[in-house]
Amino acid sequence: MISWKNLDTLAAYEKLAATKGRVKLNEAMSGENGARRVAEYSVPMAGGLAYNFAAKAVDDEVLSALQALADEAQLTDKYAALYNGEVINTGEKRRVLHQLTRGQQGEAVVVDGMDKRQFYVAQQKKAAEFAAKVHAGEIANAAGEKFTTVVQIGIGGSDLGPRAMYLALEQWAKQTGNLKLEARFISNVDPDDAASVLKSIDVAHSLFVLVSKSGTTLETLTNESFVKDALKNAGLDASKHMVAVTSETSPLAKSSDYLAAFFMDDFIGGRYSSTSCVGGVVLSLAFGPEVFARFLDGAAQADATAKEKDIRRNPAMLDALIGVYERNVLGYPATAVLPYSQALSRFPAHLQQLDMESNGKSVNRFGEPVDYVTGPIIFGEPGTNGQHSFYQLLHQGTDIIPLQFVGFRKNQAGMDVDIQGSTSQQKLCANVAAQIMAFACGKDDDNPNKAFAGGRPSSIIIGEQLTPEALGALLSHFENKVMFQGFIWNVNSFDQEGVQLGKVLAKRVLAHDTDGALKAYSDLLDI
Amino acid sequence: MISWKNLDTLAAYEKLAATKGRVKLNEAMSGENGARRVAEYSVPMAGGLAYNFAAKAVDDEVLSALQALADEAQLTDKYAALYNGEVINTGEKRRVLHQLTRGQQGEAVVVDGMDKRQFYVAQQKKAAEFAAKVHAGEIANAAGEKFTTVVQIGIGGSDLGPRAMYLALEQWAKQTGNLKLEARFISNVDPDDAASVLKSIDVAHSLFVLVSKSGTTLETLTNESFVKDALKNAGLDASKHMVAVTSETSPLAKSSDYLAAFFMDDFIGGRYSSTSCVGGVVLSLAFGPEVFARFLDGAAQADATAKEKDIRRNPAMLDALIGVYERNVLGYPATAVLPYSQALSRFPAHLQQLDMESNGKSVNRFGEPVDYVTGPIIFGEPGTNGQHSFYQLLHQGTDIIPLQFVGFRKNQAGMDVDIQGSTSQQKLCANVAAQIMAFACGKDDDNPNKAFAGGRPSSIIIGEQLTPEALGALLSHFENKVMFQGFIWNVNSFDQEGVQLGKVLAKRVLAHDTDGALKAYSDLLDI
Repeated sequence: MISWKNLDTLAAYEKLAATKGRVKLNEAMSGENGARRVAEYSVPMAGGLAYNFAAKAVDDEVLSALQALADEAQLTDKYAALYNGEVINTGEKRRVLHQLTRGQQGEAVVVDGMDKRQFYVAQQKKAAEFAAKVHAGEIANAAGEKFTTVVQIGIGGSDLGPRAMYLALEQWAKQTGNLKLEARFISNVDPDDAASVLKSIDVAHSLFVLVSKSGTTLETLTNESFVKDALKNAGLDASKHMVAVTSETSPLAKSSDYLAAFFMDDFIGGRYSSTSCVGGVVLSLAFGPEVFARFLDGAAQADATAKEKDIRRNPAMLDALIGVYERNVLGYPATAVLPYSQALSRFPAHLQQLDMESNGKSVNRFGEPVDYVTGPIIFGEPGTNGQHSFYQLLHQGTDIIPLQFVGFRKNQAGMDVDIQGSTSQQKLCANVAAQIMAFACGKDDDNPNKAFAGGRPSSIIIGEQLTPEALGALLSHFENKVMFQGFIWNVNSFDQEGVQLGKVLAKRVLAHDTDGALKAYSDLLDI
Repeated sequence: MISWKNLDTLAAYEKLAATKGRVKLNEAMSGENGARRVAEYSVPMAGGLAYNFAAKAVDDEVLSALQALADEAQLTDKYAALYNGEVINTGEKRRVLHQLTRGQQGEAVVVDGMDKRQFYVAQQKKAAEFAAKVHAGEIANAAGEKFTTVVQIGIGGSDLGPRAMYLALEQWAKQTGNLKLEARFISNVDPDDAASVLKSIDVAHSLFVLVSKSGTTLETLTNESFVKDALKNAGLDASKHMVAVTSETSPLAKSSDYLAAFFMDDFIGGRYSSTSCVGGVVLSLAFGPEVFARFLDGAAQADATAKEKDIRRNPAMLDALIGVYERNVLGYPATAVLPYSQALSRFPAHLQQLDMESNGKSVNRFGEPVDYVTGPIIFGEPGTNGQHSFYQLLHQGTDIIPLQFVGFRKNQAGMDVDIQGSTSQQKLCANVAAQIMAFACGKDDDNPNKAFAGGRPSSIIIGEQLTPEALGALLSHFENKVMFQGFIWNVNSFDQEGVQLGKVLAKRVLAHDTDGALKAYSDLLDI
């Protein structure tokens, strides 16, 4: 029997809090003890990845306390409830079924007589067949020419995840001969966003994917109009250049404005939708359905790993627990995501949404205020770029900010150069190894300005290469980490009521139904 | 006589701290009082911008306390010492002269018999003449064809600032007929970065700008080799496709490997170098020297505004003081930068470096540890994109995060679409107005999950349009804000010793001179 309790009511949390300060990271990571930790504090992940937490401020006793917390908080039971289709999203009274888009971890989930796994698979198959026809030129433009570019129109989860996934595999796909169409993305209601993309593409050879679950997202519909105007101005039939990704009940579902429509439903949250048709259509068009299927496999394998009760076999749960330890016991305000891979340049922006929108909450699942901090700030840029930017504060600032590194032994593009006795890839990897140790152990110096206190914890996810499987596993790892943290904090990670008020007020501004300061700002902005 | 004192030794700081809690933002911004604040709490900026701080948790009494702090901390005297050429960078024992690249605010600064303003102007003129010859086709490729693309190779300040500035004006330049060359950027030592850019351009028509002050930045030299290989493989003479931006004493300065060399010096810090040749060469090539000169004018005007002793006439100083109030008195850990302008998509990444690398310090100018927090975390994404992402946490998370909005009445590209009775630009502006009020005043609701506590402070910089002058003013505003905060915290904002240890350790990894955990990580990463 699952019980949903606040973190500060759990006996295991009290015991965990008592371990504060027992691990001196500088000492723990020094000498042969440090080497032993690197060897031992590693958990295999799906997709050929490994989660190494040697440089986190934990030891076997803290890990025992984390395991006890996982057990008392019934994390794997709650996870099972989720993938078995219970109404985990209590705010909107919905199931949370995005994992079914890539596999079946538990029982069949049947809603209104429909097996939801079958439904998602059918949509994925439809997208695969559509993409194959586009690649074969069976679906082509009015002149019978193949499409060369796919442009996703969407915002939030319909943009950040799919965009990050596309960029993550673009160079890999070029190198392996899997780049079928180049992809671009339009998201912002700022007209300069759509204008910029439209000026940079050949609309006559472009296919547009309009993504809106409700079919009413104002930014997306506005950008659709923008694109339709551009198509019409080019003498083209817009309906022959557009497909829709939406829910079956949306106004877009059966419109003749689209070549085809692909469906998702209310059980797929926007920020968890990259493996649904929201990501599936654009990624299948860009890379082919086989590559997308490999990506789904990686995610499904990671979902399976998240079922393990033993935190030493469940990297997502362990990562979640360490994050809670750092946030609630050690009091750190943020986590920096630092992929040493240019391909993951927008992965931090995706995680920023995934994490901050899921767990940036002040009330628990029952609407009661919680007395502890919840989701941290998430930010990051790829290394080594970040090293020449904000790492100064990470090393010597007055706050400690835990770090999440990602690194791969091999690059994607297969090009490299040897300078001063090492390749670029070796330099990249040498830097991430060096940073972990610099953050953990610091360095004494007679000049305090050149001294490093160390004691700054990090983990690293290491893989052979960023392949579709590895990317799927990476995506799922963080989805599951965030959901586990939501369970621990006892918040509902699946609604986003915090975005509603701004929408309501913006409508009032546009209707000129304002007074006081809102009217004053509107006047200043000439609305 | 200037005296450099820690913040917590100032009497004015104690008085400021006593004002904590006196402004209830929700109340202050409600009704006609809120409208009055929007009208009154606005300070004109250079470039036609205005800094509006109505939605900050301040009132006239707090402002008086901030003015007293500005006076006691001698902020404008310290600023004058800086632009008059004193050795403000105590860590590296250097002057701080980036403002001379765009104007002369005080006395002539003569170093070793050379007037530094004249030196920077001469370099700027050289860049302007070079760019004009490229645009005229007098400097062309081996086939006598015009260059069409300029690629900047640099990292950190040689990348983030110039890249953000280029993106900020790219659409404006297209629309106004000022786009002379398209610009691209290579920064990361990850070979996939250079490979990706090289695959996307026509190297035979590309000019490369190598930027490294020391001429020894490993990432940049590595990427230079990468590019040279690509040029050679295309049968081209690399030295006819490359220019250098460096210091006169660097190994690049007189090398025959470059068509031309443009100089900066040790008095221009990387993160403050966008108005020097570091930004000047690429931006003059991309947009023409006249546009770059307009950008410099905007920055110089903003520098002049920063001389005002009255905080109500000095927006950078006021912004700095409010930031310190929020960080040290109110205890907020971060600031989110939220431009409602797609053109400013990478401006937050530039500010992240500028701010976090300048003030992420734990010791004061004399190397003594400080007993208060210094630089905050800086992160952000353009609106409205962020609204569909991390704003959930900003509205309903357990931490309060101050917000820095930027908005313009007109867009850049001159294209727009009318949907549901309003243009995209109106929707964009309506959203930023709505967000400010939603954050400030919140909303009660019987369902606590749908309630907004409000009390979340923000400011907004409003302009007519993002022009070169406005961009220069915006850049300078934040540079001066960050420097004022460094003065208040009594830290040296101009060195970055925190990035050194990682470099040293990375070299050891590449030399296989490691043991313990560093060797273990190196082995895991196959170095």
